[in-house]
Order: sequence, then structure tokens, then C-alpha cells
Amino acid sequence: MKIAVLPGDGIGPEIIREARKVLEVLQKEGLAITLEEAPLGGAAYDQYGSPYPDVTQKLAREADAVLLGAVGGPAYDNLDRPLRPERGLLAIRKDLNLFANLRPAILYPELANASTLKPEVVSGLDIMIVRELTGDIYFGQPRGIRVNAAGEREGFNTMLYAESEVRRIAHVAFGIAMKRNKKLCSVDKANVLETTEFWKEIMTDVAKEYPEVTLSHMYVDNAAMQLVRNPKQFDVMVTGNIFGDILSDEASMLTGSIGMLPSASLDANNKGLYEPSHGSAPDIAGKNLANPLATILSVAMMMRYSFNLEAVAQRIENAVKKVLADGLRTADIFEAGTTKVSCSEMGDAVVAAL
Amino acid sequence: MKIAVLPGDGIGPEIIREARKVLEVLQKEGLAITLEEAPLGGAAYDQYGSPYPDVTQKLAREADAVLLGAVGGPAYDNLDRPLRPERGLLAIRKDLNLFANLRPAILYPELANASTLKPEVVSGLDIMIVRELTGDIYFGQPRGIRVNAAGEREGFNTMLYAESEVRRIAHVAFGIAMKRNKKLCSVDKANVLETTEFWKEIMTDVAKEYPEVTLSHMYVDNAAMQLVRNPKQFDVMVTGNIFGDILSDEASMLTGSIGMLPSASLDANNKGLYEPSHGSAPDIAGKNLANPLATILSVAMMMRYSFNLEAVAQRIENAVKKVLADGLRTADIFEAGTTKVSCSEMGDAVVAAL
Ligand SMILES: CC(C)[C@H](C(=O)O)[C@@H](O)C(=O)O
Ligand SMILES: CC(C)[C@H](C(=O)O)[C@@H](O)C(=O)O
Repeated sequence: MKIAVLPGDGIGPEIIREARKVLEVLQKEGLAITLEEAPLGGAAYDQYGSPYPDVTQKLAREADAVLLGAVGGPAYDNLDRPLRPERGLLAIRKDLNLFANLRPAILYPELANASTLKPEVVSGLDIMIVRELTGDIYFGQPRGIRVNAAGEREGFNTMLYAESEVRRIAHVAFGIAMKRNKKLCSVDKANVLETTEFWKEIMTDVAKEYPEVTLSHMYVDNAAMQLVRNPKQFDVMVTGNIFGDILSDEASMLTGSIGMLPSASLDANNKGLYEPSHGSAPDIAGKNLANPLATILSVAMMMRYSFNLEAVAQRIENAVKKVLADGLRTADIFEAGTTKVSCSEMGDAVVAAL
Repeated sequence: MKIAVLPGDGIGPEIIREARKVLEVLQKEGLAITLEEAPLGGAAYDQYGSPYPDVTQKLAREADAVLLGAVGGPAYDNLDRPLRPERGLLAIRKDLNLFANLRPAILYPELANASTLKPEVVSGLDIMIVRELTGDIYFGQPRGIRVNAAGEREGFNTMLYAESEVRRIAHVAFGIAMKRNKKLCSVDKANVLETTEFWKEIMTDVAKEYPEVTLSHMYVDNAAMQLVRNPKQFDVMVTGNIFGDILSDEASMLTGSIGMLPSASLDANNKGLYEPSHGSAPDIAGKNLANPLATILSVAMMMRYSFNLEAVAQRIENAVKKVLADGLRTADIFEAGTTKVSCSEMGDAVVAAL
């Protein structure tokens, strides 16, 4: 099993270094994995003049799974649009056909205080957001900035979902709901947008194949409210690319510890790209302060979804729970009474707890 | 000054009845206002077969300001798209060119407990969200559900902003920022969508005319997070129609008392439509349980923005603060130690406190 490792920018290299330690333990124990690195985003632009260069594309295509740190940083803010780091991220998602983005929002009991929400509102929170990742207004054509018939400049983009795109993400979402509490909430804006009226129609149709799952529908504005009002009403949510971008970030912030949250982006054969839900945090890059746990938990998701190694996934997740229970905290989740550790110390502790 | 009163559906007629009491006091005191009613939404469909019938259009066009209750309800869920209640709302916004939607998210100190967020995170919260209301993907053409070249069905919509549309909402937002703390945050997704890259460019250009205002830019996914993490970092926010729909609902829910929050939708000459931020609450309709304060506070906004009567606006706002200080609460904001009142009792109390 070949894993492409893309450290990326900012804190990317540091957190990837710790996640590699976990992978190397598994390797030494006999798990047949190989690790190969390539740059993505700003680092790739620096080295090859492109955020998703051929060498990275070749490696990513050959690999069975991809582990990514994070991309972006102020050094790249003034680059032309096609050269910017986030273009590398969008390009690899599209190139590998990673249409199913899974983003858990889990509140760890040890970190309950980190949430800005009252304990009773978020304790035990465990939501899985399934976001479609290769369609919608992110990739729809036509798009651009033009002069219109009246001689005025205008910016425009196209929101678009074909039936097959909605069907395949629906099946992923229902499949996950089947393994959890059989409750799925599909988020749309069907009262205004035909694209999402169509989305809702297809979701309702696919639901017939999963009679055990209770499907509900919610408007995106209401979903943004309900996540604040009573997030525990949700179990699995499924939505399009742009609404998923917004709602999954909102949901992760409810836990107060986005530094803890992993993500998976899967294709139709469970090949996947795994990355933390947080960004490249340029302000703390290179200081050995970052929280590597989201990246380590992304390795657990990789074991679960791409390699079907549920026991290994749980072993990694339990090691993370153990270091939390032992009171170890990186700066982002530190509070009085716990032990502050660096990024590399946290990685070492997880390895020791494995 | 002619005010068109559109009670709408659900709790609309009840809350409008209480707001009318306030207007009628002002009328008796000598304020030259006339009130005339017409239906909108489901009520209009029932009576005239259209959610925005000619009689309502005529009245709304002639009026100097419009007071709206709320529209929608389960009775209308299976109507064809063009007949649904929310179409009436979208139609009147577009017809009257109400491009500037102002939605305050204010936490009343007396209602601090209602928030699901910790007191220190939200105490003193006072955000004004300026949402563009007549453009964006809400109205962009082409749109629909079609069969594509590959023979597959697809849903599609067009996000679109012309320069003049962005400029005029920018001026409204900067104008409001000038009257508040001179801090404006423009929300976009410029890293992905050309429409909002264009939006950001125009915002930056208009900023030159308001050197005293500090303009910042934030991606919409980050804004959804920051509203949860630290909402008090915001003063005035400005964004497009769809992002504004989502973020303004999220922001109002931070206060825990959406039943308290008014809104204004203005044209270029300060003609406006005023309505509570909450919906038609069909479950409690007709029970005299609804909270009329958001509608009464919408009347205050009407006095401020359409009639330039700041003193009257403040008088209404102070009357609302007084009834809260007196411990009066409708069911939605009731807590132990306060006095539960009905919708009409609340309206009467505000009138008494005027
Ligand atoms: C960086 C950006 C292009 C990206 C997105 O919008 O998808 C990010 O916000 C994410 O959610 O992974
Ligand atoms: C009812 C709906 C069409 C409307 C909107 O999306 O604008 C509502 O959500 C609002 O915010 O006023």
C-alpha cells in the first residue's frame, strides 16, 4: 500500500512529521506501507512553479492514499489565481475524483471547556458531515469576470449538479448513516435554488434504497441556526460543496478544538486524501507549537476508509484518547491543570500510547 | 406617510396586530401616517391565487414603507414553485428594489441566558449584518433543471453580481459603519468564486471613499467559524445574498432570542420593507403565544431608516427595553423568575411603556 505524503505549507511539515511517526510504527510492526513525499500548494509553487506539479500528480495518482498537511500562507497571497496554494488543493481533489468529503465534528469530553457553547448544549457532540467535493459552484462552468451587454463589468459563477453526482454522494451518506444512528439530514436551499431542489429530489429517491434510514431535509440558513441552537439533534448531514464548506467549518468550531478534527476525501473506490480540518496556521509555523492530533486522527481515518483496517484505526484513536486522558495538551487546547507539550512531544506521546 | 401592512401567514397576523397598536399610538399623537393592509404569501395565494397579487403590488409600490409579518406554512408546501409563499417575499423584494437588507444581532442583557453560547463570549454582542438582497444566485439567470449534452438531468443556477450592484450595497455598508464603530468586514469566497473575487475588488475600491473605516475581508467558511469562536470581533459585516442568508441566521441564533430581532430591507431612497428576522412559526399560530417584539422593533427601524425619525425609533426601542426590564416574557424567552405573558399582553405592555 503506497501512501503519498504531501506536507504542504505553514505548520504542514511539522504535523506531518508526527503523523509519519505513527505510520512508521505500523510499518515496523509489519504493515506493508510505503511512504513517499511530494510538495503541494505554496511549497510546490516555490519548487516547481505550480501548486500541483506533475511530480505530485504522478505520485498522488499512483498512491492508494494521500496524507496532506495543509496549504497556503501570506507569502502566496499576491500570486495570480491559478498559482495560489488552494488551487493545488482544488486540483488534486478534482484530479483524483475525491467527491466525498467526510468531516466529523466530535467533542472530546476532556476538551469540553474549549467550546464557546455551554456544556449542556455540546457535551457528547458527534456529528458526521458528508460534503460533496468535486461539483457545485466550485467547478461549474461558465464562470469568470466579463463585461455584460449593458457595458458593465460583472462576476459570475455556475452552481451545477448532475444527477449522477448527487446519487453517488447520497449513497455515501446513506451508507455512513447505516453504520451510525440511521438518521440523515440533507441540507439544501430548495425554496430558492433549482440546483438544490433537484438535489432534494434525488436524495428522496435514493432514500427508497435505505428504508431503515430516516431522511430529513433542512434549509441551509436554518441548518446554520440549528447547529448553534441544538447541534446534538444532528447525526449525519449531507450537503453540496459550498454549503458543506460553510457548515462543516461552523460545526467543527462548535467543539472549540478544530486542532483535533480530521477529514477524509474519498473517490468511488475508497482511495482517499486525508488531512486535518484546520489550516496551515502561518503564525505558528516552524515553532513546534502546532497540534498534530488532527493529522494523526486523519491517519486513523485512512486506515478505516482506504485500507479497511478498523482495528488499526481504533488503536490510533485510542492512543489519542489516552494522551488526552493523561492531560497532555498542545497550546491550542491547553488549560490550567493540564500539561503543555510541543508538537513533537505530542507525537511522541501518541506513539508511546499506541 | 403611507404604510402598507402585510400580515402574511402563521403568526404574522398576531404579531402585526401588536405592532399596529404601536403605530396607532403614534398616529393618535399626531404622526401623519396611514395604514392599509393587503395579503402576501400563502394568505395572498388563498385569496387571489398568487403570492404577490396585483392589489398587494399596487399598495406596496404606492406606500412609503411596508410592514410585513411573516410568510409560509405547511399548508403551502406542495404548491408549484411560482405559487409558494416565499415567492411572494422574493417578488416584493425584487419589485421594490430592496437591495439592502439590514439584520442586527443584538444580545439584550436581560436575555443573556437564552444564548447557547457562554455569557463571556456573547455578552454585549451587537453586530449589524448588511446583506445584498436583490442579486446573487437568488436571481441570476440562467437557472433551472435541464437535460445536459450527455443526456443526463442536472440542476443549475447562476451566481452573478454586476459592479453597480456591489457598489451600492458597499455604500450602504460603509455608511452604516461610519455611524457605528467604523469597522467593516466584507465576507466573500474570493479564493474559489470569481463573483466574490470581483465583489472584494469593488469593496476595496469603494473603501477609498471612506478613509475612516477599517475594511477587512474574510472567507465565508471562516466567518461561519468566527461567529461561533468570537462573535464580538465583528461590528458591521457586509456580504452577498446567499452568504448573508446563512450568516445572518447564524448570527441571530447566537443571541438565543431570534424572536427579538427585527430587519429592514431598503431601496436607494430609503423606502423599506420591515419584518421580524424569525419565520411564520406555524406550530404556534393563532394561539396568542408569539413574541411581537421583533415586529415592534421593526417598526422602530422603519421610523429610523424610512422616516428619519430617530427619536421615535429610540422611544420604541426604550419601551421594549422597559418591558424586558420589568420582567415580561413571551414563551420563547421565558425563564424562571420572570412573568410569562401572551402576544397581546406583550403588545399592550409596550404601548403602556411608550
Ligand atoms: C482552501 C479552500 C479552497 C477550501 C475549500 O473551500 O474547499 C477549504 O476551505 C476547505 O474547506 O478545504
Ligand atoms: C424564505 C426565504 C426565501 C428567505 C431567503 O432565503 O431570503 C428567508 O430565508 C430570509 O432570509 O428572508
